[in-house]
Order: sequence, then C-alpha cells, then structure tokens
Amino acid sequence: MAGKLFLIPTIISDHQQGVIPQQVREALPGIKHFLAEDVRTARRYLSSLKVYPSMEELNFETLNKETPSASLPPLMKPLADGLNMGVISESGCPGVADPGALAVAYAHEHGFQVVPLVGPSSILLALMASGLNGQQFAFHGYLPIESKEASKKIQELERESKLKNQTQIFIETPYRNNSVFTHLIKNLHPNTRLTVALDITGQQEVITTKPVMVWRSNPAEWPKAPAVFLFLA
Amino acid sequence: MAGKLFLIPTIISDHQQGVIPQQVREALPGIKHFLAEDVRTARRYLSSLKVYPSMEELNFETLNKETPSASLPPLMKPLADGLNMGVISESGCPGVADPGALAVAYAHEHGFQVVPLVGPSSILLALMASGLNGQQFAFHGYLPIESKEASKKIQELERESKLKNQTQIFIETPYRNNSVFTHLIKNLHPNTRLTVALDITGQQEVITTKPVMVWRSNPAEWPKAPAVFLFLA
Repeated sequence: MAGKLFLIPTIISDHQQGVIPQQVREALPGIKHFLAEDVRTARRYLSSLKVYPSMEELNFETLNKETPSASLPPLMKPLADGLNMGVISESGCPGVADPGALAVAYAHEHGFQVVPLVGPSSILLALMASGLNGQQFAFHGYLPIESKEASKKIQELERESKLKNQTQIFIETPYRNNSVFTHLIKNLHPNTRLTVALDITGQQEVITTKPVMVWRSNPAEWPKAPAVFLFLA
Repeated sequence: MAGKLFLIPTIISDHQQGVIPQQVREALPGIKHFLAEDVRTARRYLSSLKVYPSMEELNFETLNKETPSASLPPLMKPLADGLNMGVISESGCPGVADPGALAVAYAHEHGFQVVPLVGPSSILLALMASGLNGQQFAFHGYLPIESKEASKKIQELERESKLKNQTQIFIETPYRNNSVFTHLIKNLHPNTRLTVALDITGQQEVITTKPVMVWRSNPAEWPKAPAVFLFLA
C-alpha cells in the first residue's frame, strides 16, 4: 500500500502549542519521514508536542524555495515505499505562502493521497478578525519593495477591491511593517477600511480595522512582529 | 472593562471534534453569550465539547444573512456590559464565507477587541492540499447558477488565473457538485489543473488535482457532500 502525504501545520507564535488540534497529534505517530523548510525548527516543533517516544526514529529532509523539482523523486521516495510522509512549513500551514505546494503537486501527479491537517494560518485568522468581506477575497503575497512600484500596486489592488467587493490580503517581513503601513495610508482612499493584524495567536496580538482617514489622523508605530495587512475599498 | 469578541470555529464534518484545538476549549468557559447562524447547531456543538458544567447558563442569539444591521446594537450589548461574546458559524470559521463579518465590523467600529480562534476552514484546507499556487489565490464564493453565466464566469476566472498565476477557489452546495464539475471540465483549457476537494476532514474525504484533459477522459461522479473547487491555468 502506498504512503500518504500529510500536511502538518505548525505554531505561528512561540510557545503557543495550544493551537494544534488533537487531529494532528493523533496523525503524527504514523509519520516518520518529514520534509521541512528548516529542519531544526521542524525537529524542535515535533519534539515540543511530545508524541514520539524518541526523536531519533524520525527522518528529515529540506524542502525550500531553492529545492529544484529534479530533487523531488528521491525526496518523495518513502511514499512509493509505502511510508507516510509529512510536510512542515516554517510557520503555519504548508502549501499556503510557502514552498510545500511543490511536494503536494508531485503527490497528485503520482497518485498519492494528500491529507491536510487543521492548524493556524495567520492569513485566515486575520481575514476572520478583520470584519472585511469574507465572501470574496484575494491573497497577494508581498508588495513590491520599491516605493513607486508599491504605490502603483496598492492603487491597482484598491481599484480591483472596489470593482469586485474583494478583500485584498498581503503579508510583510516584520522589519518592513512601518514602511508598508505608511505606503498604505498614503495611497488608499480615505474611506477604504484597512486592517493590521499583528502577532496573531501571540502575546502581542492586536487586530485593528479602521477607515484610512482615521489611521491617518492617529498613525500607529508597529513593532517588528509578523503582520498581515488587509483592505476593502 | 469591555468584553472581547471571540471568533469560534466549529467542526466541518459530523463527529470530527478532534480538529478543534485546546485554545478554543480554554477560551470557551469565559464566554457565555453567543451569536450563531443556527442556534440549535451551535448549542449541540458547544455541548459536544463538554467544557461547560451546564448549557443552561449560555445565551444564544441568531446572526445570519437576514439580520439587518439595525439589530446589531442590541445583539452586541453584552460587550458594552463587559461580557465576552462568541460568534459561531454554521460550519468552519466565522467571518469567512458566512455572515459573521457583520458582528466583527461592529466590534471594530466600537473599539471592542476581536480574537480569532484556530480551527478548520474547508477553503484553506483545500488550498493546502491542492498543490496549486498558495502564494497567490482568490476566493469567489459561488458560481452563477445559470449555465451561460457560469461558463462566462469560469472563462473570465481562467484568464485572470493565467495572467496573475492565481489559484481560483469557489464552493458549491452539495447537490450541484456534478453540474459545476461538468461546467468546469467543459470550459477550462485542457492543461489547466483542476482540484476537487470533497468532504474535507470527513469519512469520505478525497482531494484530487488533475489537468482538465485527464478529468475529461475519466470524469467522476460526485456524491452530495460539501466540496471546494480550485483551479490554476
């Protein structure tokens, strides 16, 4: 019998293991082969769940954005050998805003069953807590870094948001939070509702939605924590 | 002190309580006032988690797509009285493809803290397990019911998918699964990858991604179970 490919969510804030459901803890003992963005983080995470008698019995290989697709057949070999495998992202859910989709696409091409497990996604949690439109939304990854291009992209996304009544979602690396926030309140229409969702599930968690004009009159200073930005025109 | 608005995910398949993390079970005892799409389902769900000594102490009000925004101030009154409130969707995560966003928007407007809790979302789980692009994706709700309009919409979404390298996601009511699937394989380009994610977390769970030409040569018959459809051109 062929192995299955399990998609294993991980915590999105340090020491917040309470967000990982029993479903994940029950599936893990049947999985000994893992693909991880960062093997050290993955090992530490699995160890923290205390579901394995010994970590020595587990096998880890790296799957990240540098992994060429030619490396996939040997990486995925355990599936063909009848062994279950797990994909672990650096943070949150594999296959969403991370390189896990490579392994999943390979599994589908070769007829292996894929089983997604439940866990935290900062994108989804931010959308839930935004109060913006959850019937239509789009995730765009990162904004361009260059200032003029970022402004252009924001204006383009705002036009589309208005046209389709679509919530626009993107993420940023923590040290750029203030720069992106400044771009947003400068470029968006005063009535557009803008959400900043900071450090979701963590100690500093704060999720705030305000019209751009209100943000402008009282702009915030954001700490270097993971953030999701959302708006609806 | 003001109350907080908690967003409480619920199971997406019968008897699968293992997908609800400890985080939710720990937050619930501090919440006695609930807004639910369907009060009976919500009551049964909370009872199944066995976190309350008695269900008699809980208060439920209905919040659904028929709720006029004028009803919100009385519905949300417990927050102003310093009591926590919970929003419960009929299935999955409140605020995503359901009317919960109304209550969340109200909370932000009036300065109440919003706390999203972790749980299952069929949309997110389907995306993870699709192997399609998880760096850029859009959720569109339901397709038009009328055949010609549905075809037009599918073609439009496919053009956009190709242009933006964007995974397109939508849902359907179970009894229309076969009709939507037929529309999709008829209208999409042969090389477009199409995913059907059926009964996620349930007994019949099956998630399959294939190029449209492969689906055409071996079309499936889908049971009446909840499904998510995704494609990438």
